[in-house]
Amino acid sequence: MSTNPHPLDRALALAPTGAVGHYRGQTTQDYWNMVGPYGGITAATLVRAIMSHPQCLGEPLSLTVNYAAAVGAGEFDIEARPVRTNRSTQHWLLTITQPDADGDAQVVTTATAVTAVRRSTWSAEEEAMPVVPAAQELERAPVLNGVAWLQTYDMRFAQGILPSVWDGSEAESLTRLWVRDEPARPLDFCAIAALADVFFPRIWLRRAQRTPAGTVSMTVYFHAGSEELAAVGPAHILGQARGQEFRNGFFDQTAQLWSPGGRMLASSHQVVYYKE
Amino acid sequence: MSTNPHPLDRALALAPTGAVGHYRGQTTQDYWNMVGPYGGITAATLVRAIMSHPQCLGEPLSLTVNYAAAVGAGEFDIEARPVRTNRSTQHWLLTITQPDADGDAQVVTTATAVTAVRRSTWSAEEEAMPVVPAAQELERAPVLNGVAWLQTYDMRFAQGILPSVWDGSEAESLTRLWVRDEPARPLDFCAIAALADVFFPRIWLRRAQRTPAGTVSMTVYFHAGSEELAAVGPAHILGQARGQEFRNGFFDQTAQLWSPGGRMLASSHQVVYYKE
Repeated sequence: MSTNPHPLDRALALAPTGAVGHYRGQTTQDYWNMVGPYGGITAATLVRAIMSHPQCLGEPLSLTVNYAAAVGAGEFDIEARPVRTNRSTQHWLLTITQPDADGDAQVVTTATAVTAVRRSTWSAEEEAMPVVPAAQELERAPVLNGVAWLQTYDMRFAQGILPSVWDGSEAESLTRLWVRDEPARPLDFCAIAALADVFFPRIWLRRAQRTPAGTVSMTVYFHAGSEELAAVGPAHILGQARGQEFRNGFFDQTAQLWSPGGRMLASSHQVVYYKE
Repeated sequence: MSTNPHPLDRALALAPTGAVGHYRGQTTQDYWNMVGPYGGITAATLVRAIMSHPQCLGEPLSLTVNYAAAVGAGEFDIEARPVRTNRSTQHWLLTITQPDADGDAQVVTTATAVTAVRRSTWSAEEEAMPVVPAAQELERAPVLNGVAWLQTYDMRFAQGILPSVWDGSEAESLTRLWVRDEPARPLDFCAIAALADVFFPRIWLRRAQRTPAGTVSMTVYFHAGSEELAAVGPAHILGQARGQEFRNGFFDQTAQLWSPGGRMLASSHQVVYYKE
């Protein structure tokens, strides 16, 4: 073991706390966002809890994370419970809790997940990877001041970087970027669960106005197995995200992540709160 | 009260069973699919449970339903639990259980949901309603023999009806159709939750081969409030669905539902099991 683990692996460290499926983790400064941890690291931590569970069947197929409240700095408790195990799929309920001022456990995150044993079948792609310049031909985007988690990613925008002028001029919300962990780290289920949330809120691009926004619920569908993810190694993967509807305080965004070779690794969706 | 309620309202009838948030329902033949109820009716029933709960805050914003096992014919029990209530959002965990042969409750469905009090804000559409012929210019699609729930919808396909020949010729999986309850019924949150699952599995269109398939997990984001839904009345709404990636036994599909006037009412996604 290295004495200097990757920031992602430090953030994902979970200690069993007795009963099967109960784990304790700790937030890290590396993945801090404005008022709590980066949502992607919460998703990754839930994947880690599932995959650590002694009764886990197969590998992640889908994950829905509901951000019920900002996670506070410090320790948190995960309960990961397989509530139905079929022959080749398994259904999970998960919660993250933190104690309130009186020491009572309060739910800060809920989640459901499905794991599955996958078999080789007829397969086809339909949403093809868009044609963009190679990662090596693009500059790494500068990191926004004061947002720690952005430093844990190397992002190279092919399209749809943040507006250079916040002038309220409405535009399409499509972003395409190459992205990898920084420092580079081999891809796995936890890493790609975190990457599914890597896109800044689509409303910033759509509206060209600094609008407070936060993810309420995110779903990730995993289209690749652990071997296919490992084969990507530490390379950049291509991410795409776009809003569909911005209406009365909430918008949704769809996202896709492809391997450098053009295989869709995951698709994702989220609904996001925005102010005014 | 009418002595002849709509089939949807008969299917959604829930009786409180004592503890707050506990309800008993009963499957109906009207919405029967191959080996269990139509997945959309399960989603609608969960919405009904949430909206019936005395502590419900606001209206549905997002819903994720995990189809853990086929629901058997007969009674089922719903537990709807608000696990976190904020100022304007509320987070829900839900399960549906049925007794096994020994009378022990087994989880057949899990779900999470978010309800929210929505306020009027800056709003914009990005995924515009596609241009298609009006519902009145299209014929109602014939109902597949032996699939009861299809009779509860009036579907008029503008694009992407089932293949006329199952010859394995691969094609785009895009479907656009006008759809409403049959008999006609005013639109509401339960009805649109059910409609989010109205699209036949994309693999049938993509692959032109009769492939056993079943939804594993579905998420619905609601973009309209109850007044906007009620304003649609009993009219047809436009649905669109398309697969993104078909890989090793599972594919995902994205869907959108628009009012006749072109307002996006809901967007949805699901991951679907398929055989071989």
